[in-house]
Amino acid sequence: MAHHEQSTATFPEHIRKKRNGEQLSAGEIRDFVQGVKDKTIQESQIGAMLMAIWLQGMVAEETLALTKEMMMSGEVMSWPAEWEGLMVDKHSTGGVGDKISLVLAPALAACGCKLHRILEEVGCCIVGQTDNLVPADKVMYALRDVTSTVDSLPLITGSIISKKGAESLSALVLDVKFGNAALYKDLGSAKSLAQSMVTVGNSLGIRTGAVLSRMNCPIGRCVGNTLEVMESLECLKGRGPDDILELVTSLGGLLLWMIGRAGSLEEGKKVISTTLQNGAALEKFQNMMIGQGVASQIAASLCSTNADYYSILRLAHYQTELETQGHGTVLDIDGMVIAQVLHRLGAGRSKAGDPVNHSVGAELLVSLGHKVEKGQPWLRVHYETPALSAEQRLSLQGALTLGPVDLLHTQPLVAEIILP
Amino acid sequence: MAHHEQSTATFPEHIRKKRNGEQLSAGEIRDFVQGVKDKTIQESQIGAMLMAIWLQGMVAEETLALTKEMMMSGEVMSWPAEWEGLMVDKHSTGGVGDKISLVLAPALAACGCKLHRILEEVGCCIVGQTDNLVPADKVMYALRDVTSTVDSLPLITGSIISKKGAESLSALVLDVKFGNAALYKDLGSAKSLAQSMVTVGNSLGIRTGAVLSRMNCPIGRCVGNTLEVMESLECLKGRGPDDILELVTSLGGLLLWMIGRAGSLEEGKKVISTTLQNGAALEKFQNMMIGQGVASQIAASLCSTNADYYSILRLAHYQTELETQGHGTVLDIDGMVIAQVLHRLGAGRSKAGDPVNHSVGAELLVSLGHKVEKGQPWLRVHYETPALSAEQRLSLQGALTLGPVDLLHTQPLVAEIILP
Repeated sequence: MAHHEQSTATFPEHIRKKRNGEQLSAGEIRDFVQGVKDKTIQESQIGAMLMAIWLQGMVAEETLALTKEMMMSGEVMSWPAEWEGLMVDKHSTGGVGDKISLVLAPALAACGCKLHRILEEVGCCIVGQTDNLVPADKVMYALRDVTSTVDSLPLITGSIISKKGAESLSALVLDVKFGNAALYKDLGSAKSLAQSMVTVGNSLGIRTGAVLSRMNCPIGRCVGNTLEVMESLECLKGRGPDDILELVTSLGGLLLWMIGRAGSLEEGKKVISTTLQNGAALEKFQNMMIGQGVASQIAASLCSTNADYYSILRLAHYQTELETQGHGTVLDIDGMVIAQVLHRLGAGRSKAGDPVNHSVGAELLVSLGHKVEKGQPWLRVHYETPALSAEQRLSLQGALTLGPVDLLHTQPLVAEIILP
Repeated sequence: MAHHEQSTATFPEHIRKKRNGEQLSAGEIRDFVQGVKDKTIQESQIGAMLMAIWLQGMVAEETLALTKEMMMSGEVMSWPAEWEGLMVDKHSTGGVGDKISLVLAPALAACGCKLHRILEEVGCCIVGQTDNLVPADKVMYALRDVTSTVDSLPLITGSIISKKGAESLSALVLDVKFGNAALYKDLGSAKSLAQSMVTVGNSLGIRTGAVLSRMNCPIGRCVGNTLEVMESLECLKGRGPDDILELVTSLGGLLLWMIGRAGSLEEGKKVISTTLQNGAALEKFQNMMIGQGVASQIAASLCSTNADYYSILRLAHYQTELETQGHGTVLDIDGMVIAQVLHRLGAGRSKAGDPVNHSVGAELLVSLGHKVEKGQPWLRVHYETPALSAEQRLSLQGALTLGPVDLLHTQPLVAEIILP
C-alpha cells in the first residue's frame, strides 16, 4: 500500500512524460493501471493520459507493460489440467456478414479444442464468467468511449490481449479484416494492429497469430442473423461458399498448427476442412444447440442434409428482389452500404438494449466476377416494418458496380498471415 | 436548457475534433465551457480535452472564443460611473525578486487610476471579491494542475484574460518576463504568450499591452519579502535601482497612454517617474498602509526620508556575506539559483499553506558589469534556522560568474513592448 500512496503524487509527472512523447517505464505504467483500478488516480487524469497515449503512441515495450499490468489487475483464470494446451480463442475485429465463429467453433471443437470466448459469441458460455477479470479495462474502456480515445493501437492491444491473458489461453488467432466494410480501411493499419497484438500476445505466453483478410463485399452470401445461421449450417454441411471456407480453414488451421495439432498451416487447413466435409463439426454444432436448450428434434432437423430451414426459423414477412439496372460483370458489391440499409430496417442495434429483428437480412444472388444481364435479380432483401423505402432501394442499387470484365481485379481473400 | 441537454451527447465529437487537430467552432467551445461549469461534461472528458488542446493547440479565433465563454460563465463586474476608463490592472508572469507591484500600484494611484488585482497583491482588496467570477476557470485550473496541462498558450490566455474581462477592466498591462529566472526561458515563447493575451484582451474590449523584459539576474538588489518591501520604499523615495525604475515606468507609462492619460509612451513614463520623485506615490503608499491597519506613526516612519527600517521590520537572526572567489567583471548573477537556496531557507512555499519566513532573503552587493577583487563581499544572505549549509554556500557561489570585461554583453532590460 505504501507504494501506491507514494506514487499518487507522481501521476501528473507520468502524464507529462507521455504528453512530451517520452517512453514510460514499466513501473510508471504499473502506477497508472493500479491507480485506475484502485481509483487513486482522478478521472480527469485518466482522460488526460488516454489522450496523451492516443496522440503520442506507445512503443512495443510500453504496450506490453500496459497489457501485462491490465491483465494482472484482476483474477487470472486457471483451467483443468487435461485442457493443457487446448484452450484456444479467436478474436475478430468485426465487419459485415461475419458468421465465421458459428462455423469455426464447432470445427475446432471437433478437433478437441476447448474454447471460451467463441462460445460466448455463439450464445453458450461453457465456463463461469468472473466479474473480476481485468477490472482496470472495465474503467478504461468506458472512459475511452467518452473521451474519443478508442482507436489507439496500444489501448486496443491492451484491452483485447489483457483479457486473453487473464483467460490463460494456450493459443489465440486474430481475424483482422480490412477494407470498405471493415473497421480498418487499408492493409497497413490492419497489419499494424495485428502485429502489435501478435507481439504482445506471444510475449505474454499465448501462442498468437493473425489472418489479415479483405472485406469489401460481405463474406459469404448472407447478411442478417437468421440468414447467417442458415448459411453457417450450410458450411457445416460442406456446402458453404468458398470465401467463408477459406477464412474458416485459415483461422482454424493456424490455431491447430500453433497448438501442435497439425504439422503445418496447410495440414491444419485440411484437418478443419475435413471436419466440415465429414459431419464432425456439424455434430458438435448439433450438440451445442441441444446443450443450450434447443429441442433434440429441432436440432436434428436443422442439421439434416435437406433441412427445410423456414419450417423452423422465422422468415421475415416480406422479400423483395432487386434487379440489375444494366448488364456486365460484377466488379464490386459494397458491403457497408448493404449493412447500413439493413441496420435501418432493424437488423442491428444503434445502442445497447435496442431490439434486433433477427429475420431482417439480405441474400446476394450474384458474386464478384459474375456476368449479369439487365433486369436479373441480384439481391433478395428480407424485411418487415418499416418497409423498404424508395431511397433505401436506391442506396442498395448503388452498392452494385457492374462494368467490363477487363476492369475486374479479384484479389485473394486472405492477404497475409502473421505467424507467432 | 434544451441546448445543453442536446449538446452533451456531442462532447466526444468535440474532443475527437480537437484531438485530430481541427478548429473548434465558437458553439463547440461554448458547449465545452458550459459543460465544465454545469458539470454535464465528465471530468475524464475535461482531462482529455485539456490534453488535446495542450498537444494540438488553438488558433487565435478559438482562444478568443474560449476566453469569452469562460468570462461569460459567471458574473461580470461593474464599476462606479466616475471610474469610467480608469479601472486598470497589471498581470505579471512572475519571476525572482518581483516587487514591481509594490511600486507601480501607488504610482498609478497617484495618477488617479483605480486598481483591482494589484491591490490584492499588495494585500489590500479595495472591492468586494465575488465567488462567482469565472466559475469555469476554477474547475479547469484545478484540473490543469493534476493533468499536466498548465503550460498551454490558449489555456493560460483563457484563464488570465477571462478574469480580467469579468473584472471589466479598462486597460491591462502585461509584465511578461523571460530568461533563466523566469517561467519562459526565451523571448520567442514569452512573446507568443504576450501576443496571444494582447490580441484576446483587446478583442474583449480591454486595452491591453505588454512589456517583455529580461530576467536572468534578480530585478533590483533584494530578494525576500521584508528586503523587497524595503527596496520598494526606496524606489518610492526616488532612490530605487535603475532596473526597477525602468520596468515600473514602462509598465505604468504604457497603461497611462492606453487610458489616454498620456499622449505617448514616453510621456507616460515621465509622469510615473515624477510621482516617484515628488513623493506623490509614496504618499499613496503611506495611505494604503494605514488603510490596511498599519499604525499612522509606523507608516510615517517607514515613509520618512531616512527611515531606520530595522527598527520597525523584523531582521533575520543571522546575516552572512559571501565573498568573491576570484577577480574580474561580474558577467552574470543567476537569479534562479539564489531563489532556490532562499526557498529552502524558508523564504517561499512548497505548497499552499506552508509558512513563509518574511525575514529570510538576500541582498546583492554587486551588479552586472561591476569590477570586483577577490574576497570582496558580493551577497548578503539573511537567514534563521535552518542555517546556511556548506552545500548551499557552494550553490550560491555558483550563481556568480566573473570574467574578462570583453565577455560582458549587457542587453536592455526591456526587450520589446507590444502595443494594443
